[in-house]
Amino acid sequence: MSSTKLFKLINKSTISKVNFRFLSGLAKVSSDQESLVVNYDNKIDHFPLVWLRDNCRCNTCFHGPSQSRIINWNEFDVNVKVRSLQAKDENQKVEINWSDNHKSIYSFDWLKSRSFSKEDQEFYLKNLYIPQKKLWSNQQFLDVMKVYEYEDIMTKDEKFYNWLMDLSTYGVVLLKNAPKDAMECKKISKKIAFIKKTHYGEDYHIVAKADTNNVAYLSSPLQLHTDLPYYDYKPGVNMLHCIVQTKNKGGENLLSDGFYVAELLRKENKEAFDLLSQTEVNWSDIGEEDGVRFYKIHRAPVISLDKYGNVSSIRHSIPQRDSHFTVNLSNVKPWYRALKVFITKLYESAAEFKTEPGDILAFDNTRLVHGRIGYEDTTNIKRFLVGYFVDWDEIYCKMRVLKTQLGL
Amino acid sequence: MSSTKLFKLINKSTISKVNFRFLSGLAKVSSDQESLVVNYDNKIDHFPLVWLRDNCRCNTCFHGPSQSRIINWNEFDVNVKVRSLQAKDENQKVEINWSDNHKSIYSFDWLKSRSFSKEDQEFYLKNLYIPQKKLWSNQQFLDVMKVYEYEDIMTKDEKFYNWLMDLSTYGVVLLKNAPKDAMECKKISKKIAFIKKTHYGEDYHIVAKADTNNVAYLSSPLQLHTDLPYYDYKPGVNMLHCIVQTKNKGGENLLSDGFYVAELLRKENKEAFDLLSQTEVNWSDIGEEDGVRFYKIHRAPVISLDKYGNVSSIRHSIPQRDSHFTVNLSNVKPWYRALKVFITKLYESAAEFKTEPGDILAFDNTRLVHGRIGYEDTTNIKRFLVGYFVDWDEIYCKMRVLKTQLGL
Repeated sequence: MSSTKLFKLINKSTISKVNFRFLSGLAKVSSDQESLVVNYDNKIDHFPLVWLRDNCRCNTCFHGPSQSRIINWNEFDVNVKVRSLQAKDENQKVEINWSDNHKSIYSFDWLKSRSFSKEDQEFYLKNLYIPQKKLWSNQQFLDVMKVYEYEDIMTKDEKFYNWLMDLSTYGVVLLKNAPKDAMECKKISKKIAFIKKTHYGEDYHIVAKADTNNVAYLSSPLQLHTDLPYYDYKPGVNMLHCIVQTKNKGGENLLSDGFYVAELLRKENKEAFDLLSQTEVNWSDIGEEDGVRFYKIHRAPVISLDKYGNVSSIRHSIPQRDSHFTVNLSNVKPWYRALKVFITKLYESAAEFKTEPGDILAFDNTRLVHGRIGYEDTTNIKRFLVGYFVDWDEIYCKMRVLKTQLGL
Repeated sequence: MSSTKLFKLINKSTISKVNFRFLSGLAKVSSDQESLVVNYDNKIDHFPLVWLRDNCRCNTCFHGPSQSRIINWNEFDVNVKVRSLQAKDENQKVEINWSDNHKSIYSFDWLKSRSFSKEDQEFYLKNLYIPQKKLWSNQQFLDVMKVYEYEDIMTKDEKFYNWLMDLSTYGVVLLKNAPKDAMECKKISKKIAFIKKTHYGEDYHIVAKADTNNVAYLSSPLQLHTDLPYYDYKPGVNMLHCIVQTKNKGGENLLSDGFYVAELLRKENKEAFDLLSQTEVNWSDIGEEDGVRFYKIHRAPVISLDKYGNVSSIRHSIPQRDSHFTVNLSNVKPWYRALKVFITKLYESAAEFKTEPGDILAFDNTRLVHGRIGYEDTTNIKRFLVGYFVDWDEIYCKMRVLKTQLGL
């Protein structure tokens, strides 16, 4: 035998209460017989045996082409024990013989990237799962809203990734010099994944029209709002492609970071924050599009919190808040007062700017509220924007694909 | 003046602390000046003034064609008071003059249907918002799974509504004698709304194939699971259209009501229930479809609860549970033990049956788990199912449209 370190633990017929020791510092079973302890790169990692057995990489337990576990759980023993193990430094892997007569092999690399240490888990979550958001007020808006060239994101994967990353981090990002073509939405959404379809179809044209089924299609001011709050899974990102902009006064966009304002409210007026995060509001949309009637209702607070109390979604829309308000009578007035405070703060933190033909403005519809300054069309120039949605499920998916491809 | 009852409250320049009285039992302002009190049909309803002002139905406050509130909230006074009011029995409406110099008219019918009484609110929620679910075990399955004729639901709105109602209530429903045509999915999904698109596209063909990107496309047994748990908004309803069924043994569907089993677990093993509802699991799907790579991850417990502690969604999939398990080391073994208990109970409550060519089986993918008994194709007969998803956002929407149209 060369300098190879070979560590073979004694095969025991009775496995319980055996004190496995590091034979040379590479791998052992913990004293409570529940974990594999691996010592590599001057670091010690613990891996629960039940998890290891569940994640055996052999062909009968794991289907490579679909990257899927196919182990038969009807026969799975959650109390599975190690009968013997081998860890060879030269191979950089651990071989385990299990009490259910199965053999598994795990490479050190595979194990390292699945470490249960707090730091490694946090890195995995922030680096791969969902990047951290950075909140902003209008004071910071000019620094926050990054500007990209359309040509760059369509041809350079790293620019494409950075564009999505900024959208995820700040909730807003601007693309310049896109083709002034209403069909452009198909191309860019396909580059990410696909358009989120709603009862309004895929893309929608924002032009002033009378007797519309949606107030967005008026030329009057549009108060700050999120789109489609009456969807349980509210469309994730709103893309607004400016094809024609009014030459008159007006038509500017307003954007405010709802997460920032919600956190401000939590600090400055906890009572209002609690009311807006605990009171379920009926959001609704009732009408007809292309001859098909719709009647959406979804109940959710203005400020949705996840189970850890973090703000997870903002819903606010004067037009699409239903007149049915299904709450206790005594909560109505306090809730309205809280809403007024929240809306006032949204406006105080709002940034205003006007997009130009060829701009595509993308913003997080689960987080930002947006509005529009009223405008008037002239005879020859009629403001024309194409809007569409792409879901976060698909955007985060694309970001992980790009990240992996780019080796970031 | 005829027998008409006219009740005009004195126009006061100072409105505070005025004791408004029912002049003849129709309408008054409450003694705390916060509500309108209406007395109709031997019933008294209270409506907060701030809510009334917010829901004024006049043309400057409400846009009829889009059924949307357009009142300017930047000028909205949450402390608005009633200056005077009129309620005429013959007109069945209330007219209010407000302290902000606005006048509003509300019909009794409009008010009645927005009553803040607990009973009326509960009726609204259960009757219009989302119908109550009825949970079941396999003992009740034959009663629970209603059977409809394809022709009926395509031609009779009431049958169509009942079919969706049963799907919502029991989470499963069977359609017989649909055309044995793979394109049928377009027709029926369009009748509801549209197909939920995922990274697998719109419809997917379930046939046995080697080297697949999804284990569903093998002929081996498929363990009980929910589809696409790695989506934040998991596809709502799974439609499985049987075009060709194997003549051999096998190919049966397994269905189990995850909500029923979760409630059973809550009762019988609270510790396991808590572990499965509190531990976030990384669900994932990594691969390629039609040349496009995907890398989905979504973290959610096996049993998701809403803020009231009700079970809101079930996620379970052996293949699509990621090997990255981002939890405290000490929670791993207890969680696995809890999962084993849950899976055992899912199987104990599962019903088994085999669909026939022309059957469309629809089931709630947020609630039921499904599986398949392994089978073998013969040379001439290859089992062929077309699968697709429709979201609850769209199904509930359609149910409300049908309900309103049918006057139910």
